[in-house]
Amino acid sequence: MAKIGAIEAGGTKMVMAIGDEKSNISEREEIPTTEPKECIPKMVEWFRLRNIDALGIGAFGPTAVNPKDPRFGHILITPKTAWINCDLRGPFLRELNVPVGYDTDVNVACLGEAVFGAAKGLSNVIYVTIGTGIGTGVMIEGNLLHGMLHAEAGHIHVERVPGDDFKCNCPYHDCCLEGMAAGPAIEKRWGKKGYELAGNDKVWDIESSYIAQGVATYILCYSPQKIVLGGGVMKQEQMFPQVRQKTLKLLGGYLVTPELDDIDNYIVPAGCGGDQGILGSLELGRRELEK
Amino acid sequence: MAKIGAIEAGGTKMVMAIGDEKSNISEREEIPTTEPKECIPKMVEWFRLRNIDALGIGAFGPTAVNPKDPRFGHILITPKTAWINCDLRGPFLRELNVPVGYDTDVNVACLGEAVFGAAKGLSNVIYVTIGTGIGTGVMIEGNLLHGMLHAEAGHIHVERVPGDDFKCNCPYHDCCLEGMAAGPAIEKRWGKKGYELAGNDKVWDIESSYIAQGVATYILCYSPQKIVLGGGVMKQEQMFPQVRQKTLKLLGGYLVTPELDDIDNYIVPAGCGGDQGILGSLELGRRELEK
Repeated sequence: MAKIGAIEAGGTKMVMAIGDEKSNISEREEIPTTEPKECIPKMVEWFRLRNIDALGIGAFGPTAVNPKDPRFGHILITPKTAWINCDLRGPFLRELNVPVGYDTDVNVACLGEAVFGAAKGLSNVIYVTIGTGIGTGVMIEGNLLHGMLHAEAGHIHVERVPGDDFKCNCPYHDCCLEGMAAGPAIEKRWGKKGYELAGNDKVWDIESSYIAQGVATYILCYSPQKIVLGGGVMKQEQMFPQVRQKTLKLLGGYLVTPELDDIDNYIVPAGCGGDQGILGSLELGRRELEK
Repeated sequence: MAKIGAIEAGGTKMVMAIGDEKSNISEREEIPTTEPKECIPKMVEWFRLRNIDALGIGAFGPTAVNPKDPRFGHILITPKTAWINCDLRGPFLRELNVPVGYDTDVNVACLGEAVFGAAKGLSNVIYVTIGTGIGTGVMIEGNLLHGMLHAEAGHIHVERVPGDDFKCNCPYHDCCLEGMAAGPAIEKRWGKKGYELAGNDKVWDIESSYIAQGVATYILCYSPQKIVLGGGVMKQEQMFPQVRQKTLKLLGGYLVTPELDDIDNYIVPAGCGGDQGILGSLELGRRELEK
C-alpha cells in the first residue's frame, strides 16, 4: 500500500493527514496558519517523518492551479499579506521529492464529493462552500476547472433582496453573493453569528434567497448533475428546502430535466460529513501516483 | 483523405457542408428548417450521395448532448413544436452507417473557435452568441460542457439597467440576459432592428451594459482563457470597447490576471468570420474518426 499525504490549507488552519490508496485516513493533525516561513517548514517536517509516496494539497485562493502557469502552486494576491506570491507547492516537491498534486480548497472538496460523497460517480459536479467566504469547486466532464485561474463564482452579482438594506461586505463589489451571504455578512447584518440565529426565520429567508440566486446561475452556467452545498452556514439545514424551492422558482420552468424533477436529490448537503476537503486532497495525491 | 460531413442545424436553416480532415470545405448547401419528416430525409440523402466517412452535427437546443443520456441526439422541449423529442442524430447514424458526433450549435461554434479561430489552441474557452437568442458554448479543460443537459447561460438573471423599463422578452424569466438583450428584445424595445439602429449610441450603451453583466458572470464562473462574442448583434463592433470596459468595472479589480490586463485580446470577436459553427461541426465529425 502506498502512503499518501494530504493538506487542506486554509486561511485559519492547516489540516494534514496520512491515508492509503483506498482513502483510509490513519493520522491527522492541525496547525494554525501562521506565516509561511514558520508554517511551511513545520508541515514539510511532519510529512518527511512519515515517509509519504505522494502528496495532495487543497489551498485557499486565489492561487495558481494550472500546471502550465509559471506561478503554479503559488498563492496569489490575498488579504493574508504574508502569503502573497508564496510558493506553497514548491517546498514539498523539493524537500520531500514526491509528486505533489495541487488545487484549490473548493476544487478538492468537489473532488472529494465526486469520488466519495454525495456526488459519487458523477462527472459534472458543483461544490459550493458557504462559510467565511463563498467559493465554488467545479468538476466538468470529470476534470476540475482551472482555465485562466479558477472559478470565483462566489463573487457573482446578485440582486438585492427587497427590504434588505445591508451594505455589501465585499471590498470589491456592490452586491455580490459572498458580500451579501457569507458568514461575516450574516454576522454584520444581524449582530450575531449564524449559529446564534438558528431560530430566526427571517434570517434564513433572506439568506436562502441569496443562495438560491447563486445556485440558479450555477445551474444555468455549469449544468451540473448534482450541486453540493457545504460550509459552516449550510449547517443550518433548515435552509435546504427553501434554497431548493427558490431556485426552482428563479429557473421559472425553463429547464426540464429528471434531475430538477427530483430537486431534493439534486441540491444536497455534503456526503463526506466535513471530510470532503481532506479526502479530496488525498485523492489528488493518489492520482499523482497514477500519472 | 477522409470525407467529412457537417451540419449546422438552426431554427431557421440547416447548413450542410463537406470537408476534409484539414477542415477545407469543398461544398456547402442550405435548406430551410421545415418539419423533421421533410427536412431530415433531404439531408440524409444529400450526404448519402456524397459518401461521407463521418458526420458532425451542431444542433439548436435544448437538446440531449450527453452520450450516456438515453435521449442523446434528440431535440427536447422547444418552441418549434414539430421538433419536440425529435431524434435528429439517429437517422444519419442508421441510414449512412457512419459515426456521428453531436453537440449544441454553440458548443460546436466554441470548438470551431478553439481549434481554428480566435481561441486557437486554448483549452478553456467561452463562445457567446448574441442573436435571435443568447447561447453559450463552453469548453473546459479541452472538453465541451454537457453535464445534466448543456449550458443555458443566456438565461442567467441580470439586473435591470437604470432607466430601462423594457418588459423582459423571455416567457420564463423576469429579467434574464436573453430576454433583455437578444436581437428580438432590441427590436421590441426600439421598434427597429439592431442594424437599423447602428448610429444610436443609447441603444448600444444599454445593450453593452447587459452583455457586460453576462460576461462578468461568465468570467467568475468559467475562468475562461478567452471569451469570444459572436452572433448577429455583435456585428455592432462598436460595442466591444464598451463591453470590455463595463466588464472590468463590474469585476471591480477582484481578479488580477495577465488576461484581464490585456482585455482587448481577452474579449474578442469570432476569428472564423461566421464559419465557426460549420467548422466546429466538421471538427466534431473528424474527431469521431479518431475514436
